[in-house]
Amino acid sequence: MLALRIDGGKLAVNDIPKPVAGAEAVVRVVISGICNTDLEIVRGYAGFSGTIGHEFVGVAESVPGRAELEGKRVVGEINAGCGTCFRCVAGDPRHCPERTVLGIVGRDGAHAEYLSLPAENLAAIPDGVSDIEAVFTEPLAAACGILEQVEIGSDTRVAVIGDGKLGLLCAAAMAKVADNVTAIGKHDSKLEIAEEFGAAPMHRDDIRPDLLRSFDVVVEASGSEAGFATAVDIVRPRGKIVLKSTFHGTPRWDAARVVVDEITIVGSRCGRFAPAIELLARGGIDVTKLISGEFALADGVAAMEAASKAGVLKVLLRP
Amino acid sequence: MLALRIDGGKLAVNDIPKPVAGAEAVVRVVISGICNTDLEIVRGYAGFSGTIGHEFVGVAESVPGRAELEGKRVVGEINAGCGTCFRCVAGDPRHCPERTVLGIVGRDGAHAEYLSLPAENLAAIPDGVSDIEAVFTEPLAAACGILEQVEIGSDTRVAVIGDGKLGLLCAAAMAKVADNVTAIGKHDSKLEIAEEFGAAPMHRDDIRPDLLRSFDVVVEASGSEAGFATAVDIVRPRGKIVLKSTFHGTPRWDAARVVVDEITIVGSRCGRFAPAIELLARGGIDVTKLISGEFALADGVAAMEAASKAGVLKVLLRP
Repeated sequence: MLALRIDGGKLAVNDIPKPVAGAEAVVRVVISGICNTDLEIVRGYAGFSGTIGHEFVGVAESVPGRAELEGKRVVGEINAGCGTCFRCVAGDPRHCPERTVLGIVGRDGAHAEYLSLPAENLAAIPDGVSDIEAVFTEPLAAACGILEQVEIGSDTRVAVIGDGKLGLLCAAAMAKVADNVTAIGKHDSKLEIAEEFGAAPMHRDDIRPDLLRSFDVVVEASGSEAGFATAVDIVRPRGKIVLKSTFHGTPRWDAARVVVDEITIVGSRCGRFAPAIELLARGGIDVTKLISGEFALADGVAAMEAASKAGVLKVLLRP
Repeated sequence: MLALRIDGGKLAVNDIPKPVAGAEAVVRVVISGICNTDLEIVRGYAGFSGTIGHEFVGVAESVPGRAELEGKRVVGEINAGCGTCFRCVAGDPRHCPERTVLGIVGRDGAHAEYLSLPAENLAAIPDGVSDIEAVFTEPLAAACGILEQVEIGSDTRVAVIGDGKLGLLCAAAMAKVADNVTAIGKHDSKLEIAEEFGAAPMHRDDIRPDLLRSFDVVVEASGSEAGFATAVDIVRPRGKIVLKSTFHGTPRWDAARVVVDEITIVGSRCGRFAPAIELLARGGIDVTKLISGEFALADGVAAMEAASKAGVLKVLLRP
């Protein structure tokens, strides 16, 4: 089968053996989505070698112990725990120290004709959700996960920093719950999408002085040191900053403000799939606004190049 | 009256007018305690000019609206809000943007014969608590405040980094609740006090590899960049770091670990006085172990010098 792989720093579409049916489920990939993490892996982050990609929708081919899923459209949680450690037994394989992560850590990923995952990772997609919507389940789950880590109600003043794919999904998810969501970014075209998602758009150069120290919750999804510094500037005393993007590097920050104003910083990575699938099924967010282009898997290298260009949002791959 | 004051960068004991009875309560100071913040203010932090000091026990002389306190021994919350802004109306003058803070921001402090504070800031000290215990109310409240910001139970694995005055009080307060508290520091004599307070002492050079990523809650009370880096190293996935010491500077940190392991960082400054007074009244913590020396207020400059020496813990002043 074809698979988009990184090996020894070189990205290429290779022909490799299809995963064999065994202890894990095998899924035929229908569409996969390129995430910024894929781009970072190609730049050397995480030292990964193998098939990249972790956002997908597919058709389950063989699912040990969950035969009812076979032939059904599925998405899949990307973390696979060891199953026996303290964290796994406590029901949290996402933080298992021995975990593998689809296309990120020790496990071939989704930019391929087929992939394998533990059967329990799979979730069926309702009929009303199209394939190009379903492929957004993983990043939308990451956005919705914020709502399980930080209390957000209709009157919570929320800012989302970063108008990339993840930032826009975060803004959309927050705007489903809070009446007052501000999306802060630097691209007019992307901020327009934020506005369509129900957030008030604001260019990062236009942050008014009265907005400093004013937001109850600030979601940092730009992945930049400047974005984090802005988050510290605009969150209110006793407010919360949600760190949604992995920084690489060690950003400098004003720790004194965090202590004196008793600010909380919450690291946030993945989220549960069920709330995201439910939101898609309700038609709550038109995620297709985020699609910038679609490539055949065979053109995966060109697709990655396209995805890395400024102004481009989600690029999809079809095997 | 005598008062230990910083003016134009110069520290001196001066003779200044006693506060006049008026809208605020007037308290005759019996003992005041020197905090690291006092030392930092003298080094120029916060740009404060005036009488320094914010830890005290005294006798209330005049208390408008709370005459029952007059003649009684009292301590006092150090933040005074404007009384009319959103935060004050919500009952949180500690975060009022216009607040004054005793001996720190816009308000003469406690290293003096008399001080004034809003009547509502004062709290009576029970008979069973001695003066030299009561003067620890403010820093002990700051330590106990952690328990209101982060859930800590008997089986929570807690580490406290820093074996200074605040670190030892934090270790003591945590050990009242959690069975497994590790105090990490660099001074054997101070770590011995941590042990007497119920914490397991550990030299910072002796952190074993199996302790990395293992603690549920890490309290950073060393105020050093190295301490914060250690906190990030030893907290478990989904664990919490409580930032208790104001850093000055902008420490570098591994933000990727905070996101991937979904760590929460909680800034923590002051705490409510009531739980600290109640703990002192129960005889829960022998805070007098922390006293390194006592000076007359007239010798305040020498006292500050003594307090700044390595290995010295709490230095008290008596008017």
